[in-house]
Amino acid sequence: MKEFFPEIKEIKYEGAESKNDLAFKYYNKDEVLGGKTMKEHLRFAMSYWHTLKAQGVDMFGGETMDREWNKYENVLERAKARANAGFEFMQKLGLEYFCFHDRDIIDESMMLADSNKLLDEIVDHIEELMKKTGRKLLWGTTNAFSHPRFVHGASTSPNADVFAYAAAQVKKAMDITNRLGGENYVLWGGREGYETLLNTNSELEYDNFARFLKMVVDYKEKIGFKGQLLIEPKPKEPTKHQYDFDTATVLAFLRKYNLDKYYKVNIEANHATLAGHTFQHELNLARINGVLGSIDANQGDMLLGWDTDQFPTNIYDTTLAMYEVVKNKGLGSGGLNFDAKVRRGSFEDKDLFLAYIAGMDTFAKGLKIAYRLYEDKVFEDFIDKRYESYKTGIGKDIIDGKVGFEELSKYAETLTEVKNNSGRQEMLESKLNQYIFEVK
Amino acid sequence: MKEFFPEIKEIKYEGAESKNDLAFKYYNKDEVLGGKTMKEHLRFAMSYWHTLKAQGVDMFGGETMDREWNKYENVLERAKARANAGFEFMQKLGLEYFCFHDRDIIDESMMLADSNKLLDEIVDHIEELMKKTGRKLLWGTTNAFSHPRFVHGASTSPNADVFAYAAAQVKKAMDITNRLGGENYVLWGGREGYETLLNTNSELEYDNFARFLKMVVDYKEKIGFKGQLLIEPKPKEPTKHQYDFDTATVLAFLRKYNLDKYYKVNIEANHATLAGHTFQHELNLARINGVLGSIDANQGDMLLGWDTDQFPTNIYDTTLAMYEVVKNKGLGSGGLNFDAKVRRGSFEDKDLFLAYIAGMDTFAKGLKIAYRLYEDKVFEDFIDKRYESYKTGIGKDIIDGKVGFEELSKYAETLTEVKNNSGRQEMLESKLNQYIFEVK
Amino acid sequence: MKEFFPEIKEIKYEGAESKNDLAFKYYNKDEVLGGKTMKEHLRFAMSYWHTLKAQGVDMFGGETMDREWNKYENVLERAKARANAGFEFMQKLGLEYFCFHDRDIIDESMMLADSNKLLDEIVDHIEELMKKTGRKLLWGTTNAFSHPRFVHGASTSPNADVFAYAAAQVKKAMDITNRLGGENYVLWGGREGYETLLNTNSELEYDNFARFLKMVVDYKEKIGFKGQLLIEPKPKEPTKHQYDFDTATVLAFLRKYNLDKYYKVNIEANHATLAGHTFQHELNLARINGVLGSIDANQGDMLLGWDTDQFPTNIYDTTLAMYEVVKNKGLGSGGLNFDAKVRRGSFEDKDLFLAYIAGMDTFAKGLKIAYRLYEDKVFEDFIDKRYESYKTGIGKDIIDGKVGFEELSKYAETLTEVKNNSGRQEMLESKLNQYIFEVK
Amino acid sequence: MKEFFPEIKEIKYEGAESKNDLAFKYYNKDEVLGGKTMKEHLRFAMSYWHTLKAQGVDMFGGETMDREWNKYENVLERAKARANAGFEFMQKLGLEYFCFHDRDIIDESMMLADSNKLLDEIVDHIEELMKKTGRKLLWGTTNAFSHPRFVHGASTSPNADVFAYAAAQVKKAMDITNRLGGENYVLWGGREGYETLLNTNSELEYDNFARFLKMVVDYKEKIGFKGQLLIEPKPKEPTKHQYDFDTATVLAFLRKYNLDKYYKVNIEANHATLAGHTFQHELNLARINGVLGSIDANQGDMLLGWDTDQFPTNIYDTTLAMYEVVKNKGLGSGGLNFDAKVRRGSFEDKDLFLAYIAGMDTFAKGLKIAYRLYEDKVFEDFIDKRYESYKTGIGKDIIDGKVGFEELSKYAETLTEVKNNSGRQEMLESKLNQYIFEVK
Repeated sequence: MKEFFPEIKEIKYEGAESKNDLAFKYYNKDEVLGGKTMKEHLRFAMSYWHTLKAQGVDMFGGETMDREWNKYENVLERAKARANAGFEFMQKLGLEYFCFHDRDIIDESMMLADSNKLLDEIVDHIEELMKKTGRKLLWGTTNAFSHPRFVHGASTSPNADVFAYAAAQVKKAMDITNRLGGENYVLWGGREGYETLLNTNSELEYDNFARFLKMVVDYKEKIGFKGQLLIEPKPKEPTKHQYDFDTATVLAFLRKYNLDKYYKVNIEANHATLAGHTFQHELNLARINGVLGSIDANQGDMLLGWDTDQFPTNIYDTTLAMYEVVKNKGLGSGGLNFDAKVRRGSFEDKDLFLAYIAGMDTFAKGLKIAYRLYEDKVFEDFIDKRYESYKTGIGKDIIDGKVGFEELSKYAETLTEVKNNSGRQEMLESKLNQYIFEVK
Repeated sequence: MKEFFPEIKEIKYEGAESKNDLAFKYYNKDEVLGGKTMKEHLRFAMSYWHTLKAQGVDMFGGETMDREWNKYENVLERAKARANAGFEFMQKLGLEYFCFHDRDIIDESMMLADSNKLLDEIVDHIEELMKKTGRKLLWGTTNAFSHPRFVHGASTSPNADVFAYAAAQVKKAMDITNRLGGENYVLWGGREGYETLLNTNSELEYDNFARFLKMVVDYKEKIGFKGQLLIEPKPKEPTKHQYDFDTATVLAFLRKYNLDKYYKVNIEANHATLAGHTFQHELNLARINGVLGSIDANQGDMLLGWDTDQFPTNIYDTTLAMYEVVKNKGLGSGGLNFDAKVRRGSFEDKDLFLAYIAGMDTFAKGLKIAYRLYEDKVFEDFIDKRYESYKTGIGKDIIDGKVGFEELSKYAETLTEVKNNSGRQEMLESKLNQYIFEVK
Repeated sequence: MKEFFPEIKEIKYEGAESKNDLAFKYYNKDEVLGGKTMKEHLRFAMSYWHTLKAQGVDMFGGETMDREWNKYENVLERAKARANAGFEFMQKLGLEYFCFHDRDIIDESMMLADSNKLLDEIVDHIEELMKKTGRKLLWGTTNAFSHPRFVHGASTSPNADVFAYAAAQVKKAMDITNRLGGENYVLWGGREGYETLLNTNSELEYDNFARFLKMVVDYKEKIGFKGQLLIEPKPKEPTKHQYDFDTATVLAFLRKYNLDKYYKVNIEANHATLAGHTFQHELNLARINGVLGSIDANQGDMLLGWDTDQFPTNIYDTTLAMYEVVKNKGLGSGGLNFDAKVRRGSFEDKDLFLAYIAGMDTFAKGLKIAYRLYEDKVFEDFIDKRYESYKTGIGKDIIDGKVGFEELSKYAETLTEVKNNSGRQEMLESKLNQYIFEVK
Repeated sequence: MKEFFPEIKEIKYEGAESKNDLAFKYYNKDEVLGGKTMKEHLRFAMSYWHTLKAQGVDMFGGETMDREWNKYENVLERAKARANAGFEFMQKLGLEYFCFHDRDIIDESMMLADSNKLLDEIVDHIEELMKKTGRKLLWGTTNAFSHPRFVHGASTSPNADVFAYAAAQVKKAMDITNRLGGENYVLWGGREGYETLLNTNSELEYDNFARFLKMVVDYKEKIGFKGQLLIEPKPKEPTKHQYDFDTATVLAFLRKYNLDKYYKVNIEANHATLAGHTFQHELNLARINGVLGSIDANQGDMLLGWDTDQFPTNIYDTTLAMYEVVKNKGLGSGGLNFDAKVRRGSFEDKDLFLAYIAGMDTFAKGLKIAYRLYEDKVFEDFIDKRYESYKTGIGKDIIDGKVGFEELSKYAETLTEVKNNSGRQEMLESKLNQYIFEVK
């Protein structure tokens, strides 16, 4: 089988002192923290699209990347070469998981039936590669946003044929995901939203969106798919206003239509910040609502207003993200999918490895720091003490539902002074820094 | 009784041709649209705080405004003068409603009981003014964010005493609102949120927030308050991240804690844009979820990242806002409260009138345009046609729940082409312009 | 010659009452204001790229547009068809001007010499069309950002070969522009900037940028090009940080390298807002610095962080833009180029006409309002009076340079009170509204 | 003399392992890097306003801070107590420098002459404290934005009396700064800008601004002040649009009015990000233009749109800032002034120390990392190699001005392929991380 990255050998852990750029400095897959290896904590996945399909196009310029595997003329051959390149990449990098959209693994045809047939063929090939290499599918999904038929939405299109088409596509993608043992199935509604309310019946669109998601649940049951269903929030881009704006919006929607017990969320860092939240906020909100399913690991540029999907190299973000994951006792069937693309100027094949190493190392370091912060109860003890007034007296009565406005009012009239304590934000930020600098 | 605006006579409708800046050019209160007068459609209210208390302070500078009524030494005298000025203002301007926080109408004392006593005294006075002038209370609310005791939140404070204090304050504010025949009671949680997750137990805080809102519901029932309870979303400022980020977030929260049937939302234009939404988006979302309660009429500066609370003079915003109100068949017990402040440089008393006229005229014009757009079915017909595929065939089957993924998949396989129609955004924007320019 | 828009007849002025969507309601080209026709005031231009080449691609989806003229197999035939479509479009719409990048009018070849030969061939064709139809070239420019060779910049590339290539391309584009009687030549540096300072020698890049712009000046002189040189500021996108951030940044740069007398600016609305300014701000700043050259007429979405390049339909923006143009006594050799694209969902050919009509009507209406505001001295009189303290006394001494800190200090010591007047922002916004609603 | 922080002892360097929150973990003032001590590299300064005057007020709430020294009734006594507290703070913390606005050190009176007399009295006291403690004045400035007289600007006010008043104030502040041996004098124009162009003569305002800055230069010469003049850019807040938007804007302005040789800039991190730039960008731009004068050390919140002035605890920002400082061979007469305020919830006196320690430690660590990055030529070598094409051949000819468009065009025609190299952004970000984690 053709080797696509002949110059790259297996990437190994060599530690912080290593001068080898093609080695891990912090990601030591077998290192154990709290009874689990780093690999088990992190469950890193390769994104098929950004890694294998993206060629460096942006809105103002063409392809800068020259990927050998995308040059085959024949559709199936090209798809196979791409898969081969992907599995070689995962093996050399030590990634156990991958994620894909249906249209990533093979191009679609004019007719749906033909597209589905091609999918079956490439899935045969991928299944074989999985067996041979032991790689696993973290999640599958459907691309119901790139084709022009989805110009006005998929399940929220004003055109019922488009709804039907999207349904057929998701059905097939769920079949495939199930067949390949995918641990989750993701729905990201890039075109589910509106461009302008001047031409939109938002009420019908939300209802249709719910009808669609209900069908997903029904079909999951029908085929006995055991994976977790995930919705991936994003506020905007490509659509001006997307229906899955953020985690809270998704929760409001799921609760309205009684879909909340079937879905969790797949949180993406860059989507969080585009919605006006920190990455940690979204993870935290998902965690305390019991819907933290999986993570799309990347980062945005806080001075740019679009989804830059950069590789995550900010240690604050990865540490605080992993902190929420640790508090969540892991991600269950979820993982950390690098929904990240190399910068357009990082166009050499080697940059794919360098970028993944950068991201994996930053998350590995973040995990170690987060784990130690949690173990040392640096924030937990502070927080426990901060809220201790709810453990006794009037505070406990509030928690226990024993008092109402009248009792509280009488109590408040007795207070001569209300004494608060400093929130110590600066000190806590300094503690976080100290752990970042000192944890080995 | 002292006249505070001796140079201002009653503001009347003089029409667009009038050169008199102190006249309405578009707000003709008795003009009838669809069986209701403009006054009934718009239910304008004066905000006690911005209108009577604000003195032009910003984070970089002191008071520029010189309000006669705020200069009295004695607390009660000052409060009475302020009320008198407010009622004179409402009468001269032709405003029927007002809104207040407890701490707007009289300053608080060190001890809660004293504050409550003072409140009773000023409420006696206000009640009398209301009778004399026929003015009405649109809504009351509590200021549980300015006093330092609320530094870490009110019902979401880590300090149970603060929770109790806030409860006592809301209880009293509800009593007053009830006594004065207030048509709604609003909760805005300016400090309900977090500054940093490093010191925050967000789970407990959300739960406590829900406990508090449940007590509000109980107390409402207890005192037989007939008004509508409203939550006012805002994403940030003063708190870095507020729990009532936007309408969707509020809905998620209310649904989680089974509070959704008790609360509606009070939508503020500037809060909408700070959350990344248009004003219309928030109104639309509230409307289709049946929770559009009332409006805080103002506008933000889209290039500034804080709550500028400017008087609403953008005709696009007021037209599209009123369009949602018209589609909602009005605001019920709600109204349009000018939660707007004159610019710091508009520091003369006369500017208060000029600014309200600017806002009222822009909303009046917006109402007329919206009403005509709705009557002429400019957008409605376009939208109806756009979604017509859901009225028959496969579309109707989807709506009726007769099909699932398998049926839809079979149907989709038969499609040789999916035909979409243009969304015509530019044409629709042009239509909107035409109505703005032509509606008289 | 093939007609590409057979269903569209010549677009005429039918006035506000017309129900015909394919008619102008406000743009009456021969209507005279202040001795000039609307057509002379506005000098509208078609953007070759957005109008003729764009096919509805965005970062998440493929082509939605189906443009007949872009389907010819042969490069030159396709280029000719595109030109024919463009001239048909301009004629039917009544646009006198067009603008292009070199790569818009014909695709480039592998070798520069071949590209240049092809350019000559299509320019022959365009020249003929110009003669036949009387259309004119507002400006030409170079696309030195789409080809992968420009991945790291053009004149600011770290690669000297790229600098040379860009030079060759600009040379040829200037030759063509000159030959076609172009009234301006524009430089927009979409890749002139940096992605990260970690790999950037910003000092060398700025210097090279200046060297390049100096060569442009030299070459202009050499070939006797009489048009105006223009720089188009933009803060970001595609590049993270562009060197021509905004008008002030361009001025700083030009003044540093003594290039300020050779260049003016081409202001784009959407670029202004991405830089944190209003459109009017950029026009105003350019005007008072004597560098207001031309305008790229579009609008952004203030809630989206990228260049949406929408057709301008906001009457506030067009009015205040035209106000600055009126104060500038017109744009000289500049004009209003619609650097605007139809929304991806407005994919029918007809939408091109509808969108241009929307934009042209909004600018026409804006011109009429601006002109009347200026004639009536609505703002001018207010402003004159506001600054009158600089016409006499100490104010005049300041202007005349007769006083320094010591004299002013002595003067200030005599002041018992400093009396300011209200800035009347709300009243002025209301005046603006009144003109928008009432000017016919 | 009263001790204001009796519980705080002198803060010492105890190293990373120390569990003492009131110790430096990274700031070791006498540690030597490249021949200079950390103290000499960093030249930290206390901001008088945020540290001593701020009481935790925000736009939605009152004072949370209880500063003993601000409670004295008598103006002069209060001012002296504040100064004493400040010098005690600097001594305990080991800060050598401080910065102030005239109105920070003592409250102003109704009449200018009285204000000036009070200033003389407090300056006597401060001078004595400086002698006694060896503390130094990094810079002085004027507060010409808080008083209502400056509502419409200071030197750009439409009111000439205000211009005169501002002049008198700056004159006195320069006198004081000179007397106290201040090493710089700063101008920050918080109200120099506009709220709306509807009432603004921007041209006159810019001219007056220049006239004012010219008078500053003249007066500096007159009194023989040896310090550096600095302008501090900020894009907005309090004013909607400030004239000193960013470094580039300041440069454009200074160059226009031939003031560029007299002024440098004082770069503030939070102002940079509000203007759409990174902190490093502003420092880099200032550096390569020879105007990097001093730094206001703080950080903003990238999700909030106002000047949060937080203590700088982000290691990326401090590292890259110090990297520019190192490349600048230091800041000359400038320093690092903590224009930072403790969060409103960090209201205890102790938080002042904790916050300064957090900031100083983060900058100290940043300095060490930056210094090592520079010494190891991590980025420098990469950059040198990246631009090497400009050292020979056609690249050298470009630099040397030996070629123009014609020569370059001929050269470009010979190129069969343009070969670029990857920009390696991810790898470089990973390198930066490695230094952050590993440098001791």
